[in-house]
Amino acid sequence: MAEWFTEQLAIVPGMRAQIEVTKKLASERSQFQKLEVYETTSLGRMLVLDDVIQCTEFDEQSYHEMICQVPLFAHPNPQKVLIIGGGDGGSVRECLKHKSVQEVHLCEIDKRVVDLCLEHIPSMAGKVTDPRVHCHYEDGAAWAKNHPDTYDIIIVDSSDPIGPAEVLFQFPFYESCRNALKSDGILATQAENFLLHAKIIKELLSFGKKLFPISRYYYTQVPTYPGGMIGFTFFSRKHAHDELVDKRFAESGIKAEEFRFWSVDFHKKAFTLPGATMRDFYS
Amino acid sequence: MAEWFTEQLAIVPGMRAQIEVTKKLASERSQFQKLEVYETTSLGRMLVLDDVIQCTEFDEQSYHEMICQVPLFAHPNPQKVLIIGGGDGGSVRECLKHKSVQEVHLCEIDKRVVDLCLEHIPSMAGKVTDPRVHCHYEDGAAWAKNHPDTYDIIIVDSSDPIGPAEVLFQFPFYESCRNALKSDGILATQAENFLLHAKIIKELLSFGKKLFPISRYYYTQVPTYPGGMIGFTFFSRKHAHDELVDKRFAESGIKAEEFRFWSVDFHKKAFTLPGATMRDFYS
Repeated sequence: MAEWFTEQLAIVPGMRAQIEVTKKLASERSQFQKLEVYETTSLGRMLVLDDVIQCTEFDEQSYHEMICQVPLFAHPNPQKVLIIGGGDGGSVRECLKHKSVQEVHLCEIDKRVVDLCLEHIPSMAGKVTDPRVHCHYEDGAAWAKNHPDTYDIIIVDSSDPIGPAEVLFQFPFYESCRNALKSDGILATQAENFLLHAKIIKELLSFGKKLFPISRYYYTQVPTYPGGMIGFTFFSRKHAHDELVDKRFAESGIKAEEFRFWSVDFHKKAFTLPGATMRDFYS
Repeated sequence: MAEWFTEQLAIVPGMRAQIEVTKKLASERSQFQKLEVYETTSLGRMLVLDDVIQCTEFDEQSYHEMICQVPLFAHPNPQKVLIIGGGDGGSVRECLKHKSVQEVHLCEIDKRVVDLCLEHIPSMAGKVTDPRVHCHYEDGAAWAKNHPDTYDIIIVDSSDPIGPAEVLFQFPFYESCRNALKSDGILATQAENFLLHAKIIKELLSFGKKLFPISRYYYTQVPTYPGGMIGFTFFSRKHAHDELVDKRFAESGIKAEEFRFWSVDFHKKAFTLPGATMRDFYS
């Protein structure tokens, strides 16, 4: 029997999404949050944390490819990656596509997210058991603070700035991340929707401007997220997003077909926002 | 008292949007369809036809600027424009921003759409009474067929291919539009979401390839549409979308601030789709 899951979007007043679901595969409350996995009518399996849709099999590739491949292809030689959050495993899968990557440290505060996704959504989470992956079930902010000058790439694959992820949208965390990066490191973070959350994004960009020579915002389409898209900050200690991407892709040995969304062209264009948003964010 | 308007999306199974509304400003049934106008909590006023959201004051600029400004700035000297559908007036407003445009013919089958929007959403519809605008309350497909070699630009600002707009998604209509264009004319049409309706879009592109030397698809963000975006076909008899845009904007006398979404860069970027979609649509 199908019924409708209704998302309660605390950060978008007056709009909400409904997804038709056929079966509740898991439902529990961990030390940190409420976790649910559903089978849906037309979007594959779906992970929900504290009543907010985190990902569906239908469109998670867009989010995970774009949060990971943009910093990975912008960096000259990414070897050591830190993922903060990301317990669903989609970002781990993307990082492992690069042969240069020797270690992926997954720092997820809630082990139950990893366990549930491994059990119910292996298309996304299955690579978490790869030998190049090291799981740390710890506070990501503390981890970043305690590992200076360690990573080539840091990916902050977090939920919204309400609940356990709130600290990941504050200045001290960005400072720790900058310090945890090597001198040519790149930080990419989940950074909401530029039409619905411009105020949050401008605050993140102001943190970036204080800490990094390159501080930009980019975005991609995710139909099941509020407003149908999601954006990311791109904070880089040395290289611009489009400086190395052609050469890096050509030399990577990765085929274009390994990505559903990411491409060299889509990478470059993801940084072009509508006219008024460009003026608002950058002038 | 606020309540939730639930969209029933016939063309997207398993997903639907809910918008919080505070007042129903109009509700009637015309000869062609059911029409409703609502006041919403956070999106301004909203037009709904046959239970499908057509536009809100919050994000209609994205749709109307991009369906109109892309062909207008791609054309060397647009003077005579035909809008098929578009009774909400948003496309009329966009076309009139160009001093070169001498006549806008609005061919909307349902006069009640125009009347209701003029009354309740003047921010969008107010320019319909401009002396350069000629309203024809007639069948757009027949109008295009009966006016060969007449227009510089045709904009098909239609609802979805279910109900009165069904004929606007079929080959004979595209043939009529090609013939109604002058030899350097451009046709832009509402063409759905590339992640949810790839099959419809590929059929439209196959029509375009038979009729036009240039046949492309582009898109923009519209948070209140299914999946948060909408795309358009760009079918041109002579000029590519990016051939003249820099020069045309520089010479137009229009300020960047007159647009919330359209810009020269956003115009160019709108044609770059995710990797798999580019391969699917163009190879």
